Amino acid sequence: MKVWTLTEADIDRIALGAGILGTGGGGNPYLGMLMTKAQLKAGRTIKVIRPCDLAPDAHVLALGNIGAPTVSVEKMEEGDEGIRCLRAIEKHTGRKVDAVIADEIGGSNGLAPMITAAKLGLPVVDADGMGRAFPEVQMTTFFIHGQATHPAALADAQGNIMLVTNATTPEMLEKLMRAGTVAMGCTAHMTTAPMDGQFIRDFGVKHTVSQSWELGDTVLAARAAKTDPVEALLARSGGTLLMRGKVTDIGRRIAAGFVRGSLTVTGLETFSGRSAVIDIQNEYLIAREGNEVLAMVPDLICIVDSETGRPISTEEQRYGLRVSVIAIPSPALLRSAIALKSVGPRAFGYDFDFVPLGAPTEAQPVAAYLLPDLSDTRPLTPIHSGALS
Amino acid sequence: MKVWTLTEADIDRIALGAGILGTGGGGNPYLGMLMTKAQLKAGRTIKVIRPCDLAPDAHVLALGNIGAPTVSVEKMEEGDEGIRCLRAIEKHTGRKVDAVIADEIGGSNGLAPMITAAKLGLPVVDADGMGRAFPEVQMTTFFIHGQATHPAALADAQGNIMLVTNATTPEMLEKLMRAGTVAMGCTAHMTTAPMDGQFIRDFGVKHTVSQSWELGDTVLAARAAKTDPVEALLARSGGTLLMRGKVTDIGRRIAAGFVRGSLTVTGLETFSGRSAVIDIQNEYLIAREGNEVLAMVPDLICIVDSETGRPISTEEQRYGLRVSVIAIPSPALLRSAIALKSVGPRAFGYDFDFVPLGAPTEAQPVAAYLLPDLSDTRPLTPIHSGALS
Repeated sequence: MKVWTLTEADIDRIALGAGILGTGGGGNPYLGMLMTKAQLKAGRTIKVIRPCDLAPDAHVLALGNIGAPTVSVEKMEEGDEGIRCLRAIEKHTGRKVDAVIADEIGGSNGLAPMITAAKLGLPVVDADGMGRAFPEVQMTTFFIHGQATHPAALADAQGNIMLVTNATTPEMLEKLMRAGTVAMGCTAHMTTAPMDGQFIRDFGVKHTVSQSWELGDTVLAARAAKTDPVEALLARSGGTLLMRGKVTDIGRRIAAGFVRGSLTVTGLETFSGRSAVIDIQNEYLIAREGNEVLAMVPDLICIVDSETGRPISTEEQRYGLRVSVIAIPSPALLRSAIALKSVGPRAFGYDFDFVPLGAPTEAQPVAAYLLPDLSDTRPLTPIHSGALS
Repeated sequence: MKVWTLTEADIDRIALGAGILGTGGGGNPYLGMLMTKAQLKAGRTIKVIRPCDLAPDAHVLALGNIGAPTVSVEKMEEGDEGIRCLRAIEKHTGRKVDAVIADEIGGSNGLAPMITAAKLGLPVVDADGMGRAFPEVQMTTFFIHGQATHPAALADAQGNIMLVTNATTPEMLEKLMRAGTVAMGCTAHMTTAPMDGQFIRDFGVKHTVSQSWELGDTVLAARAAKTDPVEALLARSGGTLLMRGKVTDIGRRIAAGFVRGSLTVTGLETFSGRSAVIDIQNEYLIAREGNEVLAMVPDLICIVDSETGRPISTEEQRYGLRVSVIAIPSPALLRSAIALKSVGPRAFGYDFDFVPLGAPTEAQPVAAYLLPDLSDTRPLTPIHSGALS
């Protein structure tokens, strides 16, 4: 097994890259970065492992936040929400969790499992269920490929815990979890049903922690070299520049636990005289120029600061920001016919089919994975997961 | 131990009386009556026991429906919802349930635990947590006196099950359960945390199944004797006739899982020239004549058909109905200073204190309790409740 032990510099890169992959959502990566670094400062370690190093029957739990990002920047996490979710599931199933993973790599949700992992000494899997961020619980490659709808857990900063022990469909799970989230104040920590290692290896979007690191590193390197971070990002990600200009209109509202709205970017420089409108449901869903759809879910629409390459989330958008709108091809797992039913344009109420933008992204593990970590005697990949002791 | 084994005639009486105690809410008692009788027709038995016959450490679970009554008459129960709630709690606590009880005796909720009791062979306790119906989960004498806020369970007809394994306050429990109910389609079956026998004996509103039976029997006897059922009801319940007339205005809406609104009864005969306005939140809360408050929560405001004495629930109200508005004194447990904080007028947003209407009601067990039922070898009142086998 190869283990990547994170440093603070790694967390900076992952947070930046996860912010880009967040397509405007997934929670504020700056807050996530601070909370994750605090774990290292407290003397804990965060170990990342590749999906191929998971035992087929390892017991893996996906952790992350649910709710409206606009709320989560003001109503912050207390830090033990993930532990409460994990313990509630362990108590319910009677099985120990062996590793954690992000349901969505995008935004602070790419970092969320690391906080719980650090506190409990569990490894984080270098993969996720979206390769980006999406607004709804069932929009993961896990649910698309048959992850159990229960048990799932929800916890807030005050100590409230809700379990869904039966949900008839992933959509019903989303409905119950969203309702609980609204009752908890529009933001909460969540986990879906435990998955086994083989399932993650088959249906996880692979190496997305690594991908976040690479994208973050690319932006930081360009800044250091005083070259254009947006150009560097496009080169590294295989992305397309849809618009470069100024935010001239933005409308957002919080409805039923989501942030919804749209924003307009009016072109400057080479894009002068043009403009793009981007629709929002927690994330950037669709970019249009006039009647032409420039890019659409599940491909990634990312908006970054034109000078620094810093990702700008939907809740941070405001009039006058100088931004670049980038489209990055989605991973192949999001582009299958079965996946498009859950995450294609029609799943969001649009009346057109998905047209892909470029070849699918296939992320690779970073070079930072070390030789086997012999100091760790914990059986990360047991043949049979233990019952709760 | 004395056991009252219900007959179909008993269920007729209990349904009618629970409808009266429902103060307009608690679910449609006609539907509850049909579903409860169906248990007897299927060859099952329903055994009612007095609170004084509960062992101090018996494990008792309160069952009932939550949601908007207007919805529950169209989106009916499938029948096993209570079992799903009970099993979810048993699995979570690892303890068997020994007996069930109604959280609210009013409406179909007075009958709801009987369906699960019949199916599982458990006794029903002759008591409840309200002595009437109230719109919110935490408005029981149980929560008023410190019932644990968790675990609590929610189940719907489709098979969805939600558990609250931690709630910081009863109000937060209400919020989470209400949110789950709305997600399940505005009506669901619920249970709150298990209580022990001593707690029920101390803080349950006693003999309210008996009280329902007595009120129902009174109405049926008056009908059979062709005397005025409303007069008979007033005499039996110690109630006051607030208004007799015609429904001339009714406004209802479903908001956040409740039915809210108000109705006007314009006086006829001896009440000619007068009128009363009754406020609704699932139940009838306050009756006013002009600026004068005639009766208020927690005292019971019941509206019955002037000819037949049949209780008319909030969702059945319509223009032109000939009704009598009756106020029945609430039990002493609802009138304490601590209880009024949860169920007095101020708890419902009114700006005045409770003024009681007559001496508190104290219900007695019906004469129908038989000698010990020696055929039942199940330890209804164990010294120590068993762990789940």
